[in-house]
Amino acid sequence: MIDPRVASGLRDLTPASAIPRERMLSRFRGVFSSFGFAPIETPHIERMDVLTGKGAGSDEVLRQIFEVTNKGGTPGELALRFDLTVPLARFVARHENELGFPFKRYAIGSVFRGERPAKGRFREFTQCDFDTIGSESALADAEIALVIHKALESAGVPDFTIAMNHRGILDGLLESLGLAGGGGAVLRALDRLAKVGREAVAAELVKDPGQGGADLSTEQAARVLDFAEQGRGGPEVLDRAAQTLGSSPQARAGLENLRAILDLIASAGVPSGRMSIDLGLARGLDYYTGIVFETTIKGWERYGSVASGGRYDNLASLFTTRRLPGVGASIGLDRLLALLEEAGRLIAGQVETPVLVGYFPGTQPTTPFHLAARLRAAGIGTEVYPEPISIGRQLAHGSSRGRLLGVIVGPDEEAQKTFNLRDLVSRREDRGLAWSVLEDSVASALEVIRLGGAGA
Amino acid sequence: MIDPRVASGLRDLTPASAIPRERMLSRFRGVFSSFGFAPIETPHIERMDVLTGKGAGSDEVLRQIFEVTNKGGTPGELALRFDLTVPLARFVARHENELGFPFKRYAIGSVFRGERPAKGRFREFTQCDFDTIGSESALADAEIALVIHKALESAGVPDFTIAMNHRGILDGLLESLGLAGGGGAVLRALDRLAKVGREAVAAELVKDPGQGGADLSTEQAARVLDFAEQGRGGPEVLDRAAQTLGSSPQARAGLENLRAILDLIASAGVPSGRMSIDLGLARGLDYYTGIVFETTIKGWERYGSVASGGRYDNLASLFTTRRLPGVGASIGLDRLLALLEEAGRLIAGQVETPVLVGYFPGTQPTTPFHLAARLRAAGIGTEVYPEPISIGRQLAHGSSRGRLLGVIVGPDEEAQKTFNLRDLVSRREDRGLAWSVLEDSVASALEVIRLGGAGA
Repeated sequence: MIDPRVASGLRDLTPASAIPRERMLSRFRGVFSSFGFAPIETPHIERMDVLTGKGAGSDEVLRQIFEVTNKGGTPGELALRFDLTVPLARFVARHENELGFPFKRYAIGSVFRGERPAKGRFREFTQCDFDTIGSESALADAEIALVIHKALESAGVPDFTIAMNHRGILDGLLESLGLAGGGGAVLRALDRLAKVGREAVAAELVKDPGQGGADLSTEQAARVLDFAEQGRGGPEVLDRAAQTLGSSPQARAGLENLRAILDLIASAGVPSGRMSIDLGLARGLDYYTGIVFETTIKGWERYGSVASGGRYDNLASLFTTRRLPGVGASIGLDRLLALLEEAGRLIAGQVETPVLVGYFPGTQPTTPFHLAARLRAAGIGTEVYPEPISIGRQLAHGSSRGRLLGVIVGPDEEAQKTFNLRDLVSRREDRGLAWSVLEDSVASALEVIRLGGAGA
Repeated sequence: MIDPRVASGLRDLTPASAIPRERMLSRFRGVFSSFGFAPIETPHIERMDVLTGKGAGSDEVLRQIFEVTNKGGTPGELALRFDLTVPLARFVARHENELGFPFKRYAIGSVFRGERPAKGRFREFTQCDFDTIGSESALADAEIALVIHKALESAGVPDFTIAMNHRGILDGLLESLGLAGGGGAVLRALDRLAKVGREAVAAELVKDPGQGGADLSTEQAARVLDFAEQGRGGPEVLDRAAQTLGSSPQARAGLENLRAILDLIASAGVPSGRMSIDLGLARGLDYYTGIVFETTIKGWERYGSVASGGRYDNLASLFTTRRLPGVGASIGLDRLLALLEEAGRLIAGQVETPVLVGYFPGTQPTTPFHLAARLRAAGIGTEVYPEPISIGRQLAHGSSRGRLLGVIVGPDEEAQKTFNLRDLVSRREDRGLAWSVLEDSVASALEVIRLGGAGA
């Protein structure tokens, strides 16, 4: 016998996980499409030189690459993609003459990193990205926030905040402290503020660069931290920042950009409490060049961001001379699913198949088959248990799979062309209903159950 | 600059291909779910010993395996899956105590084979499988045919035939010729009948086994060929075969099984012309142990089968001592898409996003943003062009992406809270409509366009 376990760091998804996951992805696809984002697909296998091009991935990510070879292939030539961004850059460069810009795409797929396996960390995981490429408009930025908002709403996320910051504002701050150009260490320290607190970050800011510090004076560190900590809230934060940094052209431009984006988002009817300015938000600011987004779920902030992104100047400079600015974000599907499960917010069972047709021994098997086909033709997902076991076990099987209703026939019902209708939750049963009202009876009973339940 | 092409034998899917593909998959998922098949996911990377276990793959497939290694990993330990069947067997054995049987699953995913690249042949392609495991009932067999029927109908396939045969019938025939147990070469020869014709197959049947022949006498070959050629049609074919092979218990059982399956399929309302018996159908009969299915599209038979499958005795004998009989099929997604494209049957464009909101220079960008959000909230997919280019170019961009309607505003409309509604196909335009009737006007106009068009 061969051991049927998956390799270390990989995992199987049984229906209990795969059903809510597929449901969530299907809603995301619907949201992406409703904004005009179109799907693309790129291979899981890329050329090694594409993945390891300068700046394509961090040193850490490059160390985790899975190499791929087949008999007759050249070792070192191919590898599994570690994200969907490098493939997007390659894709856009390759097809730049047929895509038309602005180009709005989404992509959902597995990526691979040979990380040390740990709880909740997998070597294959799903990324779910959407980007608008070839536009510098604030409309494109605002739309990314709208998509995050709509996607999380569609997934039933109870309450969340989309925090925004702008690279120009932080650049202005650094410049005002005489630190223009050397802000990487400041950003890295700031990024840990929510996690480790003010004191620890202050210590890091004043540390020697040789020790990974930012080499700030105590006073500079205090100014950075005050700015970050007082920079959380609504549009009034932008007014305050304008007073502090008004002399910096890049800060002014960034503040104006954020204001325009906030207006656009509001015009689309997003409640203002959903959006927040966070001038301490520093993640990814070494990469992004304009707005940055992070999304946390209220009461679950410790999980970190479930949807992050931002604006970049030039997506595909490794592959084409054409300058391609863009803006996009990525939803952390695995994290979001884990969180909703922990919060008891995942819709269990297969709501797409609410009915089981059960039959007593002695019934012609064509009878349940016929009734099930009629229900499916009426748009009602319906299962027939394939083996002639006891009706009780058929119904128990249905319940265990999340079916809500049993349509039950036996030889008597078959002869009289009737059926019994059992609510599998309350166990209430209506008997002797005519086949002629099958679809209507089942549809009404489902409606009643769903109105009584938590809804979907 | 790094070359942005994909590696040999791989491919990118631009929206023109990815949109109809995603649409088809979404319909398939709906059909699978409506029968109670649940999704599962297994990793793209499997342990090498799982993939190369005895009988897991043919020698040819095993030669094409892509090995996977990362820094610090052991070479030869991991590989990319070459199908979804071996992972299914491993999965079912691994989770046998939590799944509950019969277990109905579907899986859609990439598989990898290092084949020599050729036109229409890719090293990464998609499989789309569904199986019922742990049941020997004819209901489970018949349901697989129903799923094929519903899935192809949902994909807009114009006219197709699901052909069926049964391993027991061919075994009975071989037995009646004194060839029981040695039928592999006969099946391989028969499998080519539609392609190469009777004479070529007859020659192969009488050839020496050393030359790959079946070593039949001329008379035996003629009987096999008569049986296969006269064995195509409706249930009457089963009656004729019963007369020829009635003395063979396995043939009798196979014929009875097929008859029961045909009755079940008919009871579900499938037109009888859609199903056909084909006693010459031999593909996969060395692997399958009961019914086998093949599906061809009328007028496109040369493409071969677009959905094939059958019943097997024991899925997971490599991984568990538990006997797991099952039945399933696989839809050839890539082939089906290629065929529908060639037949002009692919629905182009992104029907999920039928509206473009365009705006004249001088309009507040919040205005189109607001109108678009209202349409989306009403369930109407809507795009806003992000840059303030000319309205003509905005509309042209929309048309190129398959948008059907333009909602147009300028500073005047903005002041009067009105909009113009342009049919992007006929170019008819209604002017000065009030914002208060936005959703209704757009919904009615879309209805009119869709009734006039080919439909979706």
